[in-house]
Amino acid sequence: MEALNRKSVEEFRQAAKIPIVVVLENIRSAYNVGSIFRTADAFLLEAVFLTGYTAHPPHKEIKKTALGAEESVLWKHFSTTKEAIQELRSCDYTVFAVEQTNQRVMLENVEWDTEKKIALVLGNEVSGVEQETIDNCDGCIEIPQLGMKHSLNMATAGGVVLWEFVRKWILTVKHNRR
Amino acid sequence: MEALNRKSVEEFRQAAKIPIVVVLENIRSAYNVGSIFRTADAFLLEAVFLTGYTAHPPHKEIKKTALGAEESVLWKHFSTTKEAIQELRSCDYTVFAVEQTNQRVMLENVEWDTEKKIALVLGNEVSGVEQETIDNCDGCIEIPQLGMKHSLNMATAGGVVLWEFVRKWILTVKHNRR
Repeated sequence: MEALNRKSVEEFRQAAKIPIVVVLENIRSAYNVGSIFRTADAFLLEAVFLTGYTAHPPHKEIKKTALGAEESVLWKHFSTTKEAIQELRSCDYTVFAVEQTNQRVMLENVEWDTEKKIALVLGNEVSGVEQETIDNCDGCIEIPQLGMKHSLNMATAGGVVLWEFVRKWILTVKHNRR
Repeated sequence: MEALNRKSVEEFRQAAKIPIVVVLENIRSAYNVGSIFRTADAFLLEAVFLTGYTAHPPHKEIKKTALGAEESVLWKHFSTTKEAIQELRSCDYTVFAVEQTNQRVMLENVEWDTEKKIALVLGNEVSGVEQETIDNCDGCIEIPQLGMKHSLNMATAGGVVLWEFVRKWILTVKHNRR
């Protein structure tokens, strides 16, 4: 364990996190929710917010794909995404929806002052992020999709967007240590 | 369809691809294979190579998560990864394993001359890329994992690594068009 620099649940909870909250809105598949928990653990994110009918722990299918990450990662459930966004705003988070809209920024062009806290809303596997939620966000981010299907698996899309921010965070931290 | 710039199967096959081949070695879950097909479609990759006991189309579980991408994306099955790497080398691909080793490059530090073709080997969900395969590769790439579990879902890990290369490709293409 130590050799790989793994953290215990208690160490994980107390560790300084990357200031990102993932918001999962009306996700149909609890397996996808579990995968996102695993990603949130691997990338040491602040928390996962679960809104609407998104499944939340304790849950058999989440457990199956989260592999214990549902115990280390902080999470909170909200009936509506609106309430989740209100709480995030009150804690100075800037909130982005991951969605294809006219006013989106393409993922490769996203800029992030890593001093600022951000939240990323991922929407339903079929219908995407709700229009009301998009209207409530500070902006939208789109993953370039060049092929025939124009859709990534929801948990894969989450990993892709999160990596873009984690990469920026790692490079900033490195730069500041020089 | 046209409004979203989606491609038909025929158009996809004939479109100029991003010069990346994904190699899936001994993947246990056909659902994960399907997800990678979907990612390979979205990112307009050259092909997916399936080695060892990795499931290949036609396959019910691949179909369920690939959502048709198994029909657009080129794929080929090999009994061993060694044969796959031989074929890739004969076509001038540089081959990287996605694996934690002492001689790895961290993903945020990877450099890519986008003129050069690359292949990325993703290994089994539990045991990772085989040592013999690592020895056969030109290098290893590691995704920074900061949390408790030290493991991303295999399809998520694939999406993360592929985005890093696709991002570089998009930014290079843009730069060259200026």
